Amino acid sequence: MSIGTLQVIGLGPGDPELITLKAARLLAAATVIAYFAKRGRRGHARSIADALIPPNAEQIRLEYPFTTEVAVTDRRYITGMAEFYADCAERIARRLDSGRDVGLLCEGDPFFYGSSVALLDRLGRTYQSVVIPGVTGMSGCWTRAGIPMTQGDDVMTIVPGTLDAASLDARLAGSDAVVIMKVGRNLPKIRAALRRAGRADIAVYVERGTMSDERIWPLTDTERLHDRAPYFAMVLVPGRRQRR
Amino acid sequence: MSIGTLQVIGLGPGDPELITLKAARLLAAATVIAYFAKRGRRGHARSIADALIPPNAEQIRLEYPFTTEVAVTDRRYITGMAEFYADCAERIARRLDSGRDVGLLCEGDPFFYGSSVALLDRLGRTYQSVVIPGVTGMSGCWTRAGIPMTQGDDVMTIVPGTLDAASLDARLAGSDAVVIMKVGRNLPKIRAALRRAGRADIAVYVERGTMSDERIWPLTDTERLHDRAPYFAMVLVPGRRQRR
Repeated sequence: MSIGTLQVIGLGPGDPELITLKAARLLAAATVIAYFAKRGRRGHARSIADALIPPNAEQIRLEYPFTTEVAVTDRRYITGMAEFYADCAERIARRLDSGRDVGLLCEGDPFFYGSSVALLDRLGRTYQSVVIPGVTGMSGCWTRAGIPMTQGDDVMTIVPGTLDAASLDARLAGSDAVVIMKVGRNLPKIRAALRRAGRADIAVYVERGTMSDERIWPLTDTERLHDRAPYFAMVLVPGRRQRR
Repeated sequence: MSIGTLQVIGLGPGDPELITLKAARLLAAATVIAYFAKRGRRGHARSIADALIPPNAEQIRLEYPFTTEVAVTDRRYITGMAEFYADCAERIARRLDSGRDVGLLCEGDPFFYGSSVALLDRLGRTYQSVVIPGVTGMSGCWTRAGIPMTQGDDVMTIVPGTLDAASLDARLAGSDAVVIMKVGRNLPKIRAALRRAGRADIAVYVERGTMSDERIWPLTDTERLHDRAPYFAMVLVPGRRQRR
């Protein structure tokens, strides 16, 4: 009996039409799919792929043990997540051993801040695997915001909003275009850093880009969020926009 | 009579199966497509979309007036390119005025170093337009190289290899993951900068990622290229790969 292949499938930023032809072909042929989800939620990747998953495919829901009640620096978080990923890998390995391929659904592009890599680390040495790149969340966001991010010799930096103020300042100083991810409760700190860099006026806030409930505002309008931005929102700073 | 819409269509990194469902739908319905090409070449975007372009669609070839015989800093280059883009915009505008949509083909993602922006700048104020994001060339390259680029709180920087040595050093120092684009004759300078940063051993060289003739080598093996790397090759430096 042959062993199955782990298919790590990038699904793009949220609009189901931004799935690639290759990902759509793998989904159409899937007999087992797996996806991460937060407790009480459907799972973002699962939602994007919804219309393409065959009705009779087995679905493995991998539910995160924590949401925000334990800090990521807490020892319980680190050991809890390691146990969680080991358990996920075990559940997927059982299907692969039985000769079935498993399609692991990933929002965006798997190798760009993707949590599926934790499973690929655990399974990739024992099993065959294939990774399908996807349109990143940031590409979806800057396209919907109508912002050509980089041209010519622009330098672009992607920074998590979790960085401290001094690190944000340093990264802003050396870049033309900047994408600030993981906004959430870091929004006031991000706004302050962009003001210090003199770039707050051209920055744009994007939430759920390409999805039906997307919100796109000038950064200067985000005071009205009362600093309750979702974690996966982004702030975009366009590059020099030099004409060639 | 209604006026046509300019459709700026991202086509991904090269593998035609990495075209999105949305781009494929627009291509299937296209009556006019336009694409950039270098003299004597078919045009990279045109090649990616080949199987999806309806046989009876009108095709507007936009041929660059220069290849490498005039330096990009030369005054003749700058005025020549401005005239070229003005002429391209004029040819597309004629079809839009006649009520036909025009699909402008773009490799990768249009708002990420895309030359289609030069036409959108000239046509976007007068005509309706829509932009379809695509999988970037860099996503295609790091996926094929098997490199998870960023995880957790990694900072990623994208730098053109055209930067001077001091600027390359500064960008490498402040980043976890680094993508160096526009390699070409800059390869020896890039290799030297990565050696100074102590990261040459983990860097990977990728040429034509996702295409049938792709080449993927450890950077340390690129001496055999005798420094004749193509302009659109990339060098990838993975991030910290922290486990979560």
